[in-house]
Amino acid sequence: MTPMPTPAAQTDLAAEMRAIGLAARAAGRSLARASRAAKDAALRAAATAIRDHAKTILAANAEDLTFAEGSRLSAAMLDRLRLDPGRIEAMARGLEEIAALADPVGSTIAEWTRPNGLHIARVRVPLGVIGVIYESRPNVTADAGGLCLKAGNAVILRGGSESFHSSGAIVACLHRGLAAAGLDGGAVQRVPTRDRDAVGLLLAMNDLVDIIVPRGGKSLIARVQKESRIPVIAHLEGNCHVYLHASADPAKAVALTVNAKMRRTGVCGAAETLLCDRSVAATLLPPVLAALIAAGCEIRGDAGVQRIESRAKAATPADWDTEYLDAILAVRVVAGLEDAILHIERHGSHHTEAIVAEDRAAAETFLERVDSAIVLHNASTQFADGGEFGMGAEIGISTGRLHARGPVGVEQLTTFKYVVHGDGQVRP
Amino acid sequence: MTPMPTPAAQTDLAAEMRAIGLAARAAGRSLARASRAAKDAALRAAATAIRDHAKTILAANAEDLTFAEGSRLSAAMLDRLRLDPGRIEAMARGLEEIAALADPVGSTIAEWTRPNGLHIARVRVPLGVIGVIYESRPNVTADAGGLCLKAGNAVILRGGSESFHSSGAIVACLHRGLAAAGLDGGAVQRVPTRDRDAVGLLLAMNDLVDIIVPRGGKSLIARVQKESRIPVIAHLEGNCHVYLHASADPAKAVALTVNAKMRRTGVCGAAETLLCDRSVAATLLPPVLAALIAAGCEIRGDAGVQRIESRAKAATPADWDTEYLDAILAVRVVAGLEDAILHIERHGSHHTEAIVAEDRAAAETFLERVDSAIVLHNASTQFADGGEFGMGAEIGISTGRLHARGPVGVEQLTTFKYVVHGDGQVRP
Repeated sequence: MTPMPTPAAQTDLAAEMRAIGLAARAAGRSLARASRAAKDAALRAAATAIRDHAKTILAANAEDLTFAEGSRLSAAMLDRLRLDPGRIEAMARGLEEIAALADPVGSTIAEWTRPNGLHIARVRVPLGVIGVIYESRPNVTADAGGLCLKAGNAVILRGGSESFHSSGAIVACLHRGLAAAGLDGGAVQRVPTRDRDAVGLLLAMNDLVDIIVPRGGKSLIARVQKESRIPVIAHLEGNCHVYLHASADPAKAVALTVNAKMRRTGVCGAAETLLCDRSVAATLLPPVLAALIAAGCEIRGDAGVQRIESRAKAATPADWDTEYLDAILAVRVVAGLEDAILHIERHGSHHTEAIVAEDRAAAETFLERVDSAIVLHNASTQFADGGEFGMGAEIGISTGRLHARGPVGVEQLTTFKYVVHGDGQVRP
Repeated sequence: MTPMPTPAAQTDLAAEMRAIGLAARAAGRSLARASRAAKDAALRAAATAIRDHAKTILAANAEDLTFAEGSRLSAAMLDRLRLDPGRIEAMARGLEEIAALADPVGSTIAEWTRPNGLHIARVRVPLGVIGVIYESRPNVTADAGGLCLKAGNAVILRGGSESFHSSGAIVACLHRGLAAAGLDGGAVQRVPTRDRDAVGLLLAMNDLVDIIVPRGGKSLIARVQKESRIPVIAHLEGNCHVYLHASADPAKAVALTVNAKMRRTGVCGAAETLLCDRSVAATLLPPVLAALIAAGCEIRGDAGVQRIESRAKAATPADWDTEYLDAILAVRVVAGLEDAILHIERHGSHHTEAIVAEDRAAAETFLERVDSAIVLHNASTQFADGGEFGMGAEIGISTGRLHARGPVGVEQLTTFKYVVHGDGQVRP
């Protein structure tokens, strides 16, 4: 059992964090040159270690759960924290899937030859050292560790204090994988204390850490964005919209809306607001809303919606700006395409929005004009996911505009450099 | 003549900056949908306006020069500030060259179809609103304004107070171009005051500005990186290296080193340190150092260099970390390839480094291992330039690792979104 930090340990925290950063920087330099074979061998050996040590991981998780039950964690948080044999197998399989992905490092993104004979290539290289700060789910330890390793980055993991022992047991398996492949164990490290001061220290190490990826609730992201001296790839909220255009196919409207809202209500790609063209509201909305209500969804509608569906509650202005992450849907009747686009511009979070329409021109206008990371035509917003995009696993979905937008997979965890070959060219 | 801010104007500065930001956001939304023809017409009309109003621009510049001569500006700063008919023509031609570049907006970076039939495309879109903060050179007003416009971004320009009137006259020409093409004048705005508080206000408008590009000296960049609540694409120093490998061709060694150091000493791609393998120092260095000295360069060498060239001064440890931007070169004898790579890792700024070598394997090791934005084999470091790379004009060279690394041209001033076409797919 890991002891809680004592005052003496507290004093040494800054030195300890710098030692972690220095070890990560050194491991990052060697990992950047590691072969695909070595990285994949490490990932597969880590998967095997997770299966072989499932009992140890479950015991560590039980310790975390005991600790958590003494605190005031919500049922949802407790569920996220809980591991079982299925979730452990999913972690192991996740690492094997990352091993099967193409290695982004060293690939040529573009190349060209200049009139003076200089050959210029833009070549993918690792980002360097990545700090991942997350909350209760212990499986993020394996996912984030595996993705960073595949992309040739060293990673410093700072999990939630409630998953402290679970994460430690999982990191031990990742270390077994690195050791089996002859790679530097410093490539995957975790902050070995529950002390929250460690986060502040990590966010200030801009000479040793190249990027911070926070995964968690709004208060965590806000703290990281405020304090970080290091660039942040942040996942803010997903206030996602489904828009039923006048040309929508009624069957698609029902299926897509119910799936976008109800398949899983707690994911960032879940729809939170439904917009429907006024001209078709009386015919299109009744079956859509009935299906949603039958599936257990609460409807909060404007006056137009309440006229159509008596079970709809009245929406307040705050509803248009709310990411429920729950079985609740705000519903509004709009004048048409332009009105829908303006509503999304005003209230959306630039994450994921879908139009249901048979009119191709209307769909193209929506896809072009709506300024979100992901825009879909006749498909569920719940496809907002790196795996569903064919990018393999993801470390999150970026709602920022720089570097990575949308799902952040192994490619997005790299940068590039320009490699120039000449034969003695000087600049005139 | 624009008055200096009064206390009353001061009070209104925050409101004025927000008004600029809101106008930029609105203009950015419409510019994102502008056709290539309209944007290029605006750029060409702006070029014509600059030629037509050359006298007005020169008169404004004369006013700035009078103001500057009263202050304590260095001769180099005064030279950067001074416009003449040649520099005005270069600005106009620069805008026409930007018009001739391909439009990055709307181009498909990648596309693929998933097994479930979803078609996914990664499509380039503008970044949004860009804030450019720069120092004395008034031509940055035209270059940055033109590049941002081409990439579909609205721009807020904050030039140095010494170039206040020159920049104003140039912005007026950009506005003539926008008007001639029927585009929103809010797409190019400048901060209409010399008040330095405006910078702080700009850096805090993270809801209205998507990215900040600082161009200038270390203190400006440091202030921006410290204060900004908006992501920054920063150009830090270029402490660039030339490394003469044991296999270097002697003639190339002389030509490349002299060009890398002396072609222009004030550019970021100018070499600041020369490394040479010990095994060939006695034969390779004498002609290289003699040519540099003949060209007016001061040599600061380690003991090995001073033995070879008596005119070399003694280098101090600080020399390895100094970006001279002057006719001074630090020179060091190294044990070999590994030693050279370690020296660059320890002292370099990750900007641009070159190896001179006929041994291809040694060159490849250098290009792979040296972690800089640009690495060159047998070519001058002074090729570190967007124009020389064939990217057209550039707004700067990024030494950061995220989003843009190396020259920042129109493509780097865009982001992307995922456009997904389905025919009713729901996620299982």
